[in-house]
Amino acid sequence: MPEFLQLLPPVEALARLLEHLPPKPRSEEVETSAALGRVTIFPMLAPHPLPDFPRSTVDGYALRAIDTHGASESLPAYLSVMGEVIMGVQSAFTIDANQCALIHTGGMLPNGADAVAMVETTQSVRTGEVEVLRAVAVGENVLRVGEDVNTGEEVIPAGVRLRPAEIGGLMALGITHLPVVRKPQIGIISSGDEVVPANAEVHPGQVRDVNSFTLSALVEQTGGIPVLYGIIPDRVQALHDVVRRALEECDAVVVTAGSSASVRDLTAEVIDSLGPPGVLVHGVNVRPGKPTILAVCTAKEVLPPKAVIGLPGNPVSALVIADLFLVPVIDRLLGIDRPRLRPTLQAGLKINLPSQAGREDWVPVRLTGGDGILEAEPIFGKSNLIFTLARADGLICIPADATGLHAGEVVDVFLH
Amino acid sequence: MPEFLQLLPPVEALARLLEHLPPKPRSEEVETSAALGRVTIFPMLAPHPLPDFPRSTVDGYALRAIDTHGASESLPAYLSVMGEVIMGVQSAFTIDANQCALIHTGGMLPNGADAVAMVETTQSVRTGEVEVLRAVAVGENVLRVGEDVNTGEEVIPAGVRLRPAEIGGLMALGITHLPVVRKPQIGIISSGDEVVPANAEVHPGQVRDVNSFTLSALVEQTGGIPVLYGIIPDRVQALHDVVRRALEECDAVVVTAGSSASVRDLTAEVIDSLGPPGVLVHGVNVRPGKPTILAVCTAKEVLPPKAVIGLPGNPVSALVIADLFLVPVIDRLLGIDRPRLRPTLQAGLKINLPSQAGREDWVPVRLTGGDGILEAEPIFGKSNLIFTLARADGLICIPADATGLHAGEVVDVFLH
Repeated sequence: MPEFLQLLPPVEALARLLEHLPPKPRSEEVETSAALGRVTIFPMLAPHPLPDFPRSTVDGYALRAIDTHGASESLPAYLSVMGEVIMGVQSAFTIDANQCALIHTGGMLPNGADAVAMVETTQSVRTGEVEVLRAVAVGENVLRVGEDVNTGEEVIPAGVRLRPAEIGGLMALGITHLPVVRKPQIGIISSGDEVVPANAEVHPGQVRDVNSFTLSALVEQTGGIPVLYGIIPDRVQALHDVVRRALEECDAVVVTAGSSASVRDLTAEVIDSLGPPGVLVHGVNVRPGKPTILAVCTAKEVLPPKAVIGLPGNPVSALVIADLFLVPVIDRLLGIDRPRLRPTLQAGLKINLPSQAGREDWVPVRLTGGDGILEAEPIFGKSNLIFTLARADGLICIPADATGLHAGEVVDVFLH
Repeated sequence: MPEFLQLLPPVEALARLLEHLPPKPRSEEVETSAALGRVTIFPMLAPHPLPDFPRSTVDGYALRAIDTHGASESLPAYLSVMGEVIMGVQSAFTIDANQCALIHTGGMLPNGADAVAMVETTQSVRTGEVEVLRAVAVGENVLRVGEDVNTGEEVIPAGVRLRPAEIGGLMALGITHLPVVRKPQIGIISSGDEVVPANAEVHPGQVRDVNSFTLSALVEQTGGIPVLYGIIPDRVQALHDVVRRALEECDAVVVTAGSSASVRDLTAEVIDSLGPPGVLVHGVNVRPGKPTILAVCTAKEVLPPKAVIGLPGNPVSALVIADLFLVPVIDRLLGIDRPRLRPTLQAGLKINLPSQAGREDWVPVRLTGGDGILEAEPIFGKSNLIFTLARADGLICIPADATGLHAGEVVDVFLH
């Protein structure tokens, strides 16, 4: 049964898929306050400088730096206090020679002032007069206009997923609405004659649909909209009809095939009938998930080219592989160019972990310890049972060129 | 101005806050398919085993292991094929001595069978007969009943944030609804006479409210519900009234104070008037964010004890400190016991980074490189400008016992 003619390494397989998927993000307007996790579609430019007035960064006295020239504890500069800078208001007074004004952190420098002496470097002896005990330079303790951003400056590039900091930056500029990439719709199709809906009564030989929901959650997490097409029987025509409909209605489609070899071939056959280039990768050199199908279909009715991913029916394989291939496809649809930064935790491997050279292995692990050094304990399950993954804190990757990892070795754990 | 009598290290400061906050999560029922990121309030138990029938893990022949005893390529076991196991159905036939049935991955073992021979270890010579070329053991290539979980087994402990894998596991067990912790409501109060709403016209000396929105986004991200109380003028009575109302209506309260020392003292004064124990920590040994206030208030009307966190008005300090203190408070309110696992990226520091010993420093960095070794380039901003943080990929922490980090040193970058 020469099912897998060529097993590609995951990185190559992904590259082959992505090269057929030009990013064509579509735009929609959202409120900035509700834009967490959304992705910019255009570079965002500053409509005005930030700050747009000179601000004090300390509590102290706004003054002319020149008047403090040579000042020291033994020979202070004596300045007349002209008043107090009220927060949020432009001062009516001007600072002239040997004058100053009390100012608070964030206050606007009065006209004439070009620096601020920290209150800690001054002393008040008489009312209306202050002694400055240290010389200050022009601009000292002052945020100058445009020091954060200048007018017209690109503050957020296109293709950036908005975090709390970007939301704040946009608000600081008064940008209360912005165009973002419309969330891509990802069609999710489960197949398998043994699979029944999660809320159905289960008879002997039947299992509940798990993949529709794990994949929905993953799509949601990545910034897409899951569109469920239910459970399709393992028949060419039924599968063909629903994949075609999903291709027309969605931006990408995922099919979790039945687990047997014949059913997987059926998925590939259906995909290949839906317009060129069809199946690009059939079989990936990774465990779990070898029988993965990566395809792009460009039937007349379904332009632009859209990704179709055939995942193994096993829930663990489906989720691990979706993380490797579906997530980058969603990122591409969102117009995110930069490869994901995937932070990890370092942990000492608890036991020896053999692996077959030439194949990338993803192994679920539980993390123990916590004070100081973490330990990673592999969780074995005979056939990648779903709770194997639920019990794991993350996964470790045994690279294709390794024949395993040794107990005590420090491994990178990817939380999932 | 002896504002900070005792600067506590962040870890100690957090412990002091949390010891006054017993977790009292409240429950609500949600659909499992919509429960991503929600937190279990009770341990979830399996209502039945998984799998609940013996399943084949391969394509092959279901048989009695004893009939393959001693089988080899030169001396195969000859078995009569009684039929094919239909997916999703319990077979009507029984496997007796020297009989077998064609079975697909995931198929239910017929009665009598106790193992499966992989199709690759068999050959079909005559119709209705198969040669098994290798002995198989009892249970080989079979998932036994309860191999994933047994009836009554705890499958997800209480206090676990649900990921795609847990959603899938619950669905596999037919648990389509579950009780989760009700999202805690976090009151957010901005203060400062210079602060105006983000959609208001800005006059010289005024700045737009940033903190309400960065903190809302952080609260949302952590699994809470932000409740905005707007911008309060720097007056004791106004601040007192709104903090009191927020304490009554929410599960925790955050106040971003105006930046000047006098206004920060005002926040502490207001908090201390709202019931014991009041201010627990005033000043944390961390940069940015030294003037942080951690408090718990237990007025009669606001039982149970609730956290009140006073953050610096500076948007970067506010966000960095909220990540250190507000996020763990939300986790506590969610009933999450286990300290957060905080994955990082390793990168080579691009330049020397001096720091003051005895103080924990958080420095925003941009990551460059990507193929292979990443480089972390600190982003300096005179006064923690919001776009300093927006331009950064993450933060590095210089521990209190270090006097800085050297160029080339490998540092842990926390994405934010």
